[in-house]
Amino acid sequence: METEPLGVIARLMHELGKLPGIGPKSAERLTHHLLQAPKQQVFSLAEALRAIKEQIHPCEVCCHPTEHVRCTICADPQRDDSLVCVVEQPRDVIALERSGSYRGLYHVLHGRLSPLDGIGPEQLTIDRLMARVRTGRIQEVIMATNPTTEGDGTSLYLSTLLGPLGVKVTRLARGLPTGSVLEFANSQMLADALEGRRVL
Amino acid sequence: METEPLGVIARLMHELGKLPGIGPKSAERLTHHLLQAPKQQVFSLAEALRAIKEQIHPCEVCCHPTEHVRCTICADPQRDDSLVCVVEQPRDVIALERSGSYRGLYHVLHGRLSPLDGIGPEQLTIDRLMARVRTGRIQEVIMATNPTTEGDGTSLYLSTLLGPLGVKVTRLARGLPTGSVLEFANSQMLADALEGRRVL
Repeated sequence: METEPLGVIARLMHELGKLPGIGPKSAERLTHHLLQAPKQQVFSLAEALRAIKEQIHPCEVCCHPTEHVRCTICADPQRDDSLVCVVEQPRDVIALERSGSYRGLYHVLHGRLSPLDGIGPEQLTIDRLMARVRTGRIQEVIMATNPTTEGDGTSLYLSTLLGPLGVKVTRLARGLPTGSVLEFANSQMLADALEGRRVL
Repeated sequence: METEPLGVIARLMHELGKLPGIGPKSAERLTHHLLQAPKQQVFSLAEALRAIKEQIHPCEVCCHPTEHVRCTICADPQRDDSLVCVVEQPRDVIALERSGSYRGLYHVLHGRLSPLDGIGPEQLTIDRLMARVRTGRIQEVIMATNPTTEGDGTSLYLSTLLGPLGVKVTRLARGLPTGSVLEFANSQMLADALEGRRVL
């Protein structure tokens, strides 16, 4: 806003503009919408933003974001705890849950191996996955990383670590179009991929 | 988020989904982005949101949002204070400032007359505009409401109020938008352009 160059309005535009998919024009439109929106609505949004940083942390078991010690999936006694599905990010858990075709647990890596970006095994939650498998409760680990070079590489790396532990390692069937992103796959594609999983 | 139906993550998605142009998918994508964003960035956004509601109020002169008593335009001694441009909303001030072709002051109505929506003169900042004009300092009031039925109606209403005060009342020129193509101009645009033609 030219008229208040260093003021609170410009600051909000600047902060909104950092969000993905929100360019300068959108940030300006949103800011003017918020200027006229009810005070309570804007405070609720501000509070919800604070809350996700103050109250959300990784589940102590699977590393999925939760406001409890364990996420609702890990805490659900109905889930099959002999089965663990390894995903790159929390959104992949949501996508798989939405497909309704999986009743096991998850493990969220919070990324994928990417040597060029300096992301090695120690940046992911691989140690915690190994610890889970070593308890002996888990019989099968399903690799559900993205069907990309880095996702496949991550799965391959994990399978070499998991093999010696005597656990069955599978990966999602290639019903997924290579190069696509898991979170945008529809339920049927995910269901097919789960059903056709193969030993790595 | 299916797995935490009443939790803080779902609440943030819900709040983001109230914003214009942000549907459920975008709200979900933004939420997961924010979950992984640096804590300080999210807190800055939350703080900027609170600030616009706590620190921003209408300029005591022109009603443009400001964090000071007077906005930077009204407080600028370089501006021509005999000229007032009446606009519907703060964004119109920004648009006019961006054009760089206006050096007078503004008056923000914060809406337009819209009897069907129950918006009458008392919902707008018309009283304050009248008080400004009555001080005798203002020589010309330029109507810059939107070129719509409601915008035109608002300008017409204001001109009947301002006429008796002896101030000159003008409105922005109507015609072809610069850079447009004549064959795509609608009949109203062409009628306006013909009516307002000037000697070359």
